[in-house]
Amino acid sequence: MSATAAPVAIIMGSRSDWPVLRHAAEMLEGLGVAYEAKVVSAHRTPDRMYDFAKSAKNRGVKVIIAGAGGAAHLPGMTASLTDLPVLGVPIESKALKGMDSLLSIVQMPAGIPVGTLAIGEAGAKNAGIMAAKILALSDAGVAERVAAFTARQTESIPETVEDA
Amino acid sequence: MSATAAPVAIIMGSRSDWPVLRHAAEMLEGLGVAYEAKVVSAHRTPDRMYDFAKSAKNRGVKVIIAGAGGAAHLPGMTASLTDLPVLGVPIESKALKGMDSLLSIVQMPAGIPVGTLAIGEAGAKNAGIMAAKILALSDAGVAERVAAFTARQTESIPETVEDA
Amino acid sequence: MSATAAPVAIIMGSRSDWPVLRHAAEMLEGLGVAYEAKVVSAHRTPDRMYDFAKSAKNRGVKVIIAGAGGAAHLPGMTASLTDLPVLGVPIESKALKGMDSLLSIVQMPAGIPVGTLAIGEAGAKNAGIMAAKILALSDAGVAERVAAFTARQTESIPETVEDA
Amino acid sequence: MSATAAPVAIIMGSRSDWPVLRHAAEMLEGLGVAYEAKVVSAHRTPDRMYDFAKSAKNRGVKVIIAGAGGAAHLPGMTASLTDLPVLGVPIESKALKGMDSLLSIVQMPAGIPVGTLAIGEAGAKNAGIMAAKILALSDAGVAERVAAFTARQTESIPETVEDA
Amino acid sequence: MSATAAPVAIIMGSRSDWPVLRHAAEMLEGLGVAYEAKVVSAHRTPDRMYDFAKSAKNRGVKVIIAGAGGAAHLPGMTASLTDLPVLGVPIESKALKGMDSLLSIVQMPAGIPVGTLAIGEAGAKNAGIMAAKILALSDAGVAERVAAFTARQTESIPETVEDA
Amino acid sequence: MSATAAPVAIIMGSRSDWPVLRHAAEMLEGLGVAYEAKVVSAHRTPDRMYDFAKSAKNRGVKVIIAGAGGAAHLPGMTASLTDLPVLGVPIESKALKGMDSLLSIVQMPAGIPVGTLAIGEAGAKNAGIMAAKILALSDAGVAERVAAFTARQTESIPETVEDA
Amino acid sequence: MSATAAPVAIIMGSRSDWPVLRHAAEMLEGLGVAYEAKVVSAHRTPDRMYDFAKSAKNRGVKVIIAGAGGAAHLPGMTASLTDLPVLGVPIESKALKGMDSLLSIVQMPAGIPVGTLAIGEAGAKNAGIMAAKILALSDAGVAERVAAFTARQTESIPETVEDA
Amino acid sequence: MSATAAPVAIIMGSRSDWPVLRHAAEMLEGLGVAYEAKVVSAHRTPDRMYDFAKSAKNRGVKVIIAGAGGAAHLPGMTASLTDLPVLGVPIESKALKGMDSLLSIVQMPAGIPVGTLAIGEAGAKNAGIMAAKILALSDAGVAERVAAFTARQTESIPETVEDA
Repeated sequence: MSATAAPVAIIMGSRSDWPVLRHAAEMLEGLGVAYEAKVVSAHRTPDRMYDFAKSAKNRGVKVIIAGAGGAAHLPGMTASLTDLPVLGVPIESKALKGMDSLLSIVQMPAGIPVGTLAIGEAGAKNAGIMAAKILALSDAGVAERVAAFTARQTESIPETVEDA
Repeated sequence: MSATAAPVAIIMGSRSDWPVLRHAAEMLEGLGVAYEAKVVSAHRTPDRMYDFAKSAKNRGVKVIIAGAGGAAHLPGMTASLTDLPVLGVPIESKALKGMDSLLSIVQMPAGIPVGTLAIGEAGAKNAGIMAAKILALSDAGVAERVAAFTARQTESIPETVEDA
Repeated sequence: MSATAAPVAIIMGSRSDWPVLRHAAEMLEGLGVAYEAKVVSAHRTPDRMYDFAKSAKNRGVKVIIAGAGGAAHLPGMTASLTDLPVLGVPIESKALKGMDSLLSIVQMPAGIPVGTLAIGEAGAKNAGIMAAKILALSDAGVAERVAAFTARQTESIPETVEDA
Repeated sequence: MSATAAPVAIIMGSRSDWPVLRHAAEMLEGLGVAYEAKVVSAHRTPDRMYDFAKSAKNRGVKVIIAGAGGAAHLPGMTASLTDLPVLGVPIESKALKGMDSLLSIVQMPAGIPVGTLAIGEAGAKNAGIMAAKILALSDAGVAERVAAFTARQTESIPETVEDA
Repeated sequence: MSATAAPVAIIMGSRSDWPVLRHAAEMLEGLGVAYEAKVVSAHRTPDRMYDFAKSAKNRGVKVIIAGAGGAAHLPGMTASLTDLPVLGVPIESKALKGMDSLLSIVQMPAGIPVGTLAIGEAGAKNAGIMAAKILALSDAGVAERVAAFTARQTESIPETVEDA
Repeated sequence: MSATAAPVAIIMGSRSDWPVLRHAAEMLEGLGVAYEAKVVSAHRTPDRMYDFAKSAKNRGVKVIIAGAGGAAHLPGMTASLTDLPVLGVPIESKALKGMDSLLSIVQMPAGIPVGTLAIGEAGAKNAGIMAAKILALSDAGVAERVAAFTARQTESIPETVEDA
Repeated sequence: MSATAAPVAIIMGSRSDWPVLRHAAEMLEGLGVAYEAKVVSAHRTPDRMYDFAKSAKNRGVKVIIAGAGGAAHLPGMTASLTDLPVLGVPIESKALKGMDSLLSIVQMPAGIPVGTLAIGEAGAKNAGIMAAKILALSDAGVAERVAAFTARQTESIPETVEDA
Repeated sequence: MSATAAPVAIIMGSRSDWPVLRHAAEMLEGLGVAYEAKVVSAHRTPDRMYDFAKSAKNRGVKVIIAGAGGAAHLPGMTASLTDLPVLGVPIESKALKGMDSLLSIVQMPAGIPVGTLAIGEAGAKNAGIMAAKILALSDAGVAERVAAFTARQTESIPETVEDA
């Protein structure tokens, strides 16, 4: 992995999660926050996960966004291997519609937090925003762009229910 | 409210949530992070919530921990009123055991993230740790204490299943 | 907002909720009850929600119908900001099929009621009827039209299972 | 049944529901709204339910609060037999903790609304408040008492988490 | 209604339930059991339901099959109005996939049983078979046809997983 | 097993289910219907189950009541081994409160019906009543006692919420 | 059935389960493990199930994979009739999406284990792998192929989120 | 860890899981199968988990029983780090009663199976039996003791519902 990392790393259990997780990536782009995105499977590439999680802080990563579905262990296991804040995105699973993903991510035992977002695309977008809000605490530029995003979002909601 | 706030604000929908939320407070104390704790009900004191959320950033708050149960609107509404990162703690409700609290907090729409922790006491502790991990990104002292906490935690788990 | 309001206000968290909420509107039209319909997002336009809810009574609104999905805070927050009766319509959400919306709306704490209807289109229609039943208590014309609607509804149900 | 009824009727499927439903009664008393309370079982006294529901409006009842648990048919069946607004209170059931009661009450088909409140005691209290809010639309005295209740409720929430 | 009824009556809350309930009808036809099928809505035609249920026994009905969805009150209310055995078929609902229908039908209070079958088409078929099994206790012809059906069913299951 | 059986057989997966199932027995006693009660475990005594189910009809059993909890296979397997009508009583399980028992009993595939009652004691009582209603179709004495029971039940429900 | 069986038997409640269960078969083929596949319905062919389960060990079967949906009794009943290890695959059911299948399979009482895999296709594949892992304990060839499969699987996961 | 291990290793996420997992241990003892029991937390001691899982096969472990609650990652992560068969025991969690534990363990992605048992004590006992059934495939002594256990179990179930 590269020696100097982007401040946000987006990891996911399977390449098939990318259509959901790319919404986190696009949100970060819109907020001017650099990121890296990798497939890191807790179950199928556990060594890659260990290496990623244990090296992330030294490489300069500040916030990790981890998305996974079903018995979604990636966010929690990553959180157990690093002191960086980890945000979890439950992917909607086929049979149980992401309820399994949500519970597997959010119900972490005391000691190892994962800040969990909503199931699916909304959660991925919000993981991007949450990462930016965290970085904004020590980066005035990000803070300004988050504020501008929020303002634009409010303005973008017309009050009328039908198009003019 | 005071002009200079602690970096973490713990708010809760009801004084009866304090036995759960004080675990967040104790964790922050253990990690050497100052906090304030207030009862702010989204439903019964909506104006207080507005004032709290809109002034928090200017008062110096950096991370908000919000706990609530049932139709738990406090974390999400607070998040909609500030650019600060908001962490949500679902309180175990009487009939539905916190499943209502969890869904009301975590299933936020795109645009307004709440980093949600586990239901109940474990979630409260983890909200404290998560807040510290976020502050640690720009505070070396907190970072050291978080690292020490994690190391101690690992060491505190004996391998044997029975006491000697 | 206009100085003289219709007796029923229909609000919704997103313009995308209108295909469901318009069933409330059509029901009110059929019962000869005037209404206004607005997009008011608890999360993305919290100030608009405050203004709407706090001014509704003075503007002449008598019943508020609020629809929202996922972590659906609009009905409950509106109810916390007005003495008017608020009816909640849970919108069917993508992953959890409206179970999150339902619990977020119905499980309100003591002190702030939301009269909650069924998930989706049936709930929207019933919110319209419920609003009319409430107005009918002090409006003989509405009462007559509600009675006629109920009678027509009963008559419209043929006993045979197949078309003649 | 008496010729002149109170404006609110509280009915319940079993005498064992009274410890929950009396919270509706006490709330109404606190708000100066007269009520009657009866045991009316949809399943064990269906004729009593028919008579009650069909005569309620003529006897002067304006709002019906119906509580029931399990396969909770009383609120919906009552709503099908009267044009009065019906509020439903799901009683917490033994095995399924009121989830069965909630779904049996709230998931009414289009045409027959039941304004459903939260499971259990909070729902009962809120049914009382909701009934008062409905009556307040045409009764200035009730309106004043509801406003005073809301104000007192807001004032009663201290901001501090511990007793002085 | 006709003076001499078939031994099985199939009733349903809505004509739209017929595509499911006709599987009960077809099963009864296959087993040589006469039936009548009617739309009887607990909520929209409560008087029709009362008349149907109270007269069924005298008209010669022996077993009632009642299908309904959502807040499915038809089976339970019918059971409360007759001494005949009532079988309930939960119709798959749109949002909650029949879980609401199932709980509304099966969770009846002590005193009023509804013999509940599976959600949807399988439940409808099984209601037909169950009715026949009940009638077979006092009708040797039906008993023979039920036994033949069961034998044919066993024979119809090839052991191989692929067609020859 | 005895050559001449009672018309109702109550079977259960474990002796620990008897405190629930004896409510079926007591109901049958009250209705003057003879029964036998046995422990027959689908999993731990599968041969006993086969023998019981395959011989029940010849021994004179007319209705089988089967109670079981968790992965509750006894009702469905019994139904697959006899043409007699089988009623299922889901026992409340420790962790999942009988939701597993209910789904394991009610969700039978097309071809093999189990008439399922409510979870726990209410379901056991109702299984007794349902069995009596079925026997009443060809036994005038049982029919009279069922009618008397229903009438007494209705009379036993006082309308007042508090004891005089 | 043949005198000398393959070491793994795949059984399923219905031929319609084969599109799911064939993933177990394909996995076994890929791992060089012989298998037989049969339709054995607990409910519609109970005698076939008894014969299959009671003879499997003597015929040389070592591991049984059983898939079923809804009230899925096949895995548990098979496990009650043999000392061989039984693996259960919950088939996704129409209404409840396999939650009923999962609970019916996994919630077995003490004494009769079923090693349960995930709902649907992933569970079927994993049943094949699990069977091979069990056989690998006493078959070095299978052990080598399982190890090779795992290594290939790890290598097959590219780190990049987009195709080059 | 010791150079020569027992054939079964029981691991658990927390010492507080031992009162459940010791039922697996006692079952193994009763079946004459040696075991080791250790606390290995996926989240709090991830390195210990890696070392344990990667060395287990070489140390002579043949079957791993892993119990965990909440976001229960231990069974699945262990399975991803070894070719040995892994059995998972969901511990009943406080708020969600083990539903989170169950889904986190059973819903593994294709490629990494965990043979999952029931929630709680029954699941722990069954994990012990399942491990013995697996070992019995290549150990005639264990096979005999499993057969004897099964026979004793069947004999231990009296048919009568009440003690003589």
